[in-house]
Amino acid sequence: MTQLRVGLAQLNPTVGDLAGNAALIREGTAEAAQQGADVVLFPELVLTGCPLEDLASHPAFAQDSRERLAALARELADDGHGATLVILGCLDHDETGPRNAVAALHRGMVVAEQFDHHPDGAFGEHHPTHPGQSLEVLQLHGVNIGMLSGTDLGMSADTCTTLANSGVDLILAPAAIPFERGAANRLAPLLQQRATETGIVIGGANPVGGQDGLVFDGNSRIVDGHGTGLYQAPRFESRVATMDTTIGTNVVETSPDTGGPRIRHHHLDGGSRSQHPHTTPVSGEALSDEAQTWSALVLGLRDYSRKNGFQSTLFGFSGGIDSAVCAALVADALGADALHGVSMPSRYSSRHSTEDAEELAERIGCHFRSENVEDIVADYVTRLQLTGLAEENIQARVRGMLLMAISNMEGHLVLAPANKTELAVGYSTLYGDAVGGFAPLKDVFKTQVWRLARWRNDEANRRGETPPIPERSINKPASAELRPDQADTDSLPEYTLLDSLLGRYLEDEWDRAALVTSGFDTETVDRILRMIKGTEYKRRQYPPGTRVSRRAFDRDRRFPITNAWHETH
Amino acid sequence: MTQLRVGLAQLNPTVGDLAGNAALIREGTAEAAQQGADVVLFPELVLTGCPLEDLASHPAFAQDSRERLAALARELADDGHGATLVILGCLDHDETGPRNAVAALHRGMVVAEQFDHHPDGAFGEHHPTHPGQSLEVLQLHGVNIGMLSGTDLGMSADTCTTLANSGVDLILAPAAIPFERGAANRLAPLLQQRATETGIVIGGANPVGGQDGLVFDGNSRIVDGHGTGLYQAPRFESRVATMDTTIGTNVVETSPDTGGPRIRHHHLDGGSRSQHPHTTPVSGEALSDEAQTWSALVLGLRDYSRKNGFQSTLFGFSGGIDSAVCAALVADALGADALHGVSMPSRYSSRHSTEDAEELAERIGCHFRSENVEDIVADYVTRLQLTGLAEENIQARVRGMLLMAISNMEGHLVLAPANKTELAVGYSTLYGDAVGGFAPLKDVFKTQVWRLARWRNDEANRRGETPPIPERSINKPASAELRPDQADTDSLPEYTLLDSLLGRYLEDEWDRAALVTSGFDTETVDRILRMIKGTEYKRRQYPPGTRVSRRAFDRDRRFPITNAWHETH
Repeated sequence: MTQLRVGLAQLNPTVGDLAGNAALIREGTAEAAQQGADVVLFPELVLTGCPLEDLASHPAFAQDSRERLAALARELADDGHGATLVILGCLDHDETGPRNAVAALHRGMVVAEQFDHHPDGAFGEHHPTHPGQSLEVLQLHGVNIGMLSGTDLGMSADTCTTLANSGVDLILAPAAIPFERGAANRLAPLLQQRATETGIVIGGANPVGGQDGLVFDGNSRIVDGHGTGLYQAPRFESRVATMDTTIGTNVVETSPDTGGPRIRHHHLDGGSRSQHPHTTPVSGEALSDEAQTWSALVLGLRDYSRKNGFQSTLFGFSGGIDSAVCAALVADALGADALHGVSMPSRYSSRHSTEDAEELAERIGCHFRSENVEDIVADYVTRLQLTGLAEENIQARVRGMLLMAISNMEGHLVLAPANKTELAVGYSTLYGDAVGGFAPLKDVFKTQVWRLARWRNDEANRRGETPPIPERSINKPASAELRPDQADTDSLPEYTLLDSLLGRYLEDEWDRAALVTSGFDTETVDRILRMIKGTEYKRRQYPPGTRVSRRAFDRDRRFPITNAWHETH
Repeated sequence: MTQLRVGLAQLNPTVGDLAGNAALIREGTAEAAQQGADVVLFPELVLTGCPLEDLASHPAFAQDSRERLAALARELADDGHGATLVILGCLDHDETGPRNAVAALHRGMVVAEQFDHHPDGAFGEHHPTHPGQSLEVLQLHGVNIGMLSGTDLGMSADTCTTLANSGVDLILAPAAIPFERGAANRLAPLLQQRATETGIVIGGANPVGGQDGLVFDGNSRIVDGHGTGLYQAPRFESRVATMDTTIGTNVVETSPDTGGPRIRHHHLDGGSRSQHPHTTPVSGEALSDEAQTWSALVLGLRDYSRKNGFQSTLFGFSGGIDSAVCAALVADALGADALHGVSMPSRYSSRHSTEDAEELAERIGCHFRSENVEDIVADYVTRLQLTGLAEENIQARVRGMLLMAISNMEGHLVLAPANKTELAVGYSTLYGDAVGGFAPLKDVFKTQVWRLARWRNDEANRRGETPPIPERSINKPASAELRPDQADTDSLPEYTLLDSLLGRYLEDEWDRAALVTSGFDTETVDRILRMIKGTEYKRRQYPPGTRVSRRAFDRDRRFPITNAWHETH
């Protein structure tokens, strides 16, 4: 038995910002070194950010990344932290294409680099055709440390088992597993499974932050050889945590040469160790479904805005629940001063809509203006003699164009406030309420929007603050207000029923037969399935938005637009 | 040596239309049987259409597909063609997920079905975890016929070699390889390579038709064991062709059992054979670059419209080259009566724009109207005091909304006429000229648009018809006409230079260093690369359009929107 002081650094890198990400890694290493860490673990692809999509296969980028890694190793030594072993995930490339890699930096050098043994995991179609050739083992203060990317760790047990059978005492895994609603990040069960399979200690570092539609929620952790958690970092916050970890000495089985990967050993001089005692930090707490979803939505919105250089956001305040929840999200993500609301009443807007929009702006303390769209709508309606759906749509579109024009003049990021329910059944107007650079509620069903609104107001009450969302916006029946006395339930089932059906069909992958057997009305099922199928083209043109479910539109669910199949069983 | 009469049926299936596709297969079989075919080969996934995207992993769909296949086998026998062996590609599923399969139908039964041996090829991320377990060999009139999907054929030589080593005399491959500009469909070199590797005759059937952005161009073919083409079907046309094929008897090597796939033999009773002599049909001719690109654009547009139930299209006639070429494409794809052009002059429109739009409508003989957008634009401009880019954009957007309103009233498919050059550098207005359900020129650079225009007019002259495109639309300098005396070259390099740079960067995957070394001005390169990088968000919301290059936006090239990396080497 021996002790190793292990640092887990869950940071928020930005895709492509090699210099900025390197600076974050230097700060994280400094913080861990100050806490006496012998080794610090960083997330997967932390130097480049991720996911990289086709940027991964751009050779000049991989080349820049490789050069930056070598410079980083030198800089860490220049910072006086050369003796601290740094393990991180990075991008490399060889003749087969981009490689997802883990690297070890020590005393100014990249002492080891290992390519994924399941090369089709990280970059999808661009996968190289052969697995990594070696497994790199770092001996530090008598402990044999193996490295594996979270991707390799997740793809199968075999590489992990090979490491354990080669005498490794500790596995450190740079990971990048995005948020999905649930008890913990999926890193937790993964580490637990591999630890119990191999009987050795495994640590995983996961990033924090938003990248286009994806959110990473941290929750880095280390588990012992029984799978018991020794520490878990909080979710949604950058954090460098260091803990003394007891490492059992692995009984090395001399395994026969089966033609598997070559094991390469590196003996590192860890130098003198910290004599300061260190208290294991307190693990992050579990979060309620509403708390974690809210945090993910705030982080996704903040990082999309911030990382793309937007200082402020703009969208229509309709008086309804979606724009109210979007407003509260912006206030939490960027501050009330970064929020510009526009009320755009038309002839079908009820008085309470304008009042509720005003109350929302007052409660939040954001910028607010009112623009009447009646004249422009009337101009289109009269000239083209618009009726029915065309008249409904033109109202939404005149509003959308007005928002885009203000954005052009003032530089705000326009947000599209529609929710997942509306997107699923096509209950939104292309180029109308669908305009925007980002859609915060794209992956949140309508009934979840209501739950989040109530939860956020309760939180405010608990903290003695003004609840941001007007009560009437939560309690009144939903309406698009595009024709007289319109209610969403004129065209749609009650939202409780609708979301229950959509959740099972879209996220739990039930088929029509299962829906009908479970008691949903056959006619309703067929109508909703037809609406989902018929509106794929709208979803293809919808802006990106934060993913919080296992199955988000576009990223996880893309059906053909041209599709003659109707489910009938 | 023996003779087999082989039919190649290149058909145009529709994704999801199991009944319609089965009807096509019955018609194709009847036609081949009438020509005395012993065996007829159909394309990959012909019963379901393709690509299926996430429809592939919908179990109820795979189940429907499987049932339809069994019914089809019975129907073929009922049609009196049970003795004709039918080989086709279809969708199946097992406990690991969807399976890309080839099946053999004979005498009312599905006599053999074989799953892909490279299961990650057809459905990307949804790939099953294990390869197909068997290779099915059909003995008909003394010939041993092996089957392989085009996907399996393309992934590696091994399965093909295994078949050859097992005594197979002929391989028939249901394929589905989309069009890319080039001398022939990529099926040609693939068949040639596998035939020369194995020394046996190989036939491949490829579909024809558009599916969302993809176009299949047929060009089905059969090659002998030296790789010499025996017959190639034309491109872009449905065709059933039958030819007498001389099959060499393969020398069977009794290969040792190496734990490879199991070979299963099926002895089929082909019944009495046709005594009518049959002349090998004439092979399809090579097409010029313009001719094949034009055919692909026509087919892609026609099938998107037709398969999605649109009878007519609508877009703005600006007097410029893009809308003129789009108009000519619609006329060729759907007829002039299916085309509705709208001239929407504003204060910055030059007189020749309106004249050229009118001349276009006259030349084509399509529906045409003029709507002045000045009042509505002025309303926005005055109310919001719009200047600069905001004033430019609102003109494009007021036009876009007008088109959408007319479409809502009259049911036309709105087309977005922008080209690949504009899309690459973001020279189009989101929700303005970018509105539409389909973008015919999305993958065609501006200089190619001009070339296509000249080619199409020349074709008309050659045929003694009225050239569809006004000469002035081809020859005048390009301008968006959104401010006084604007020309595209105010903000962009000359198109010849720009397209040369874009083609190398986007399609040939040159990096910045290669561009600079080859002589492009450094400042221009940096400016254009920055424009490409900064407009990814616009491309994400752009409608689908016909793919004609190796690297089409969205389908083949997706970069992160949030991306801090600038190429500097």
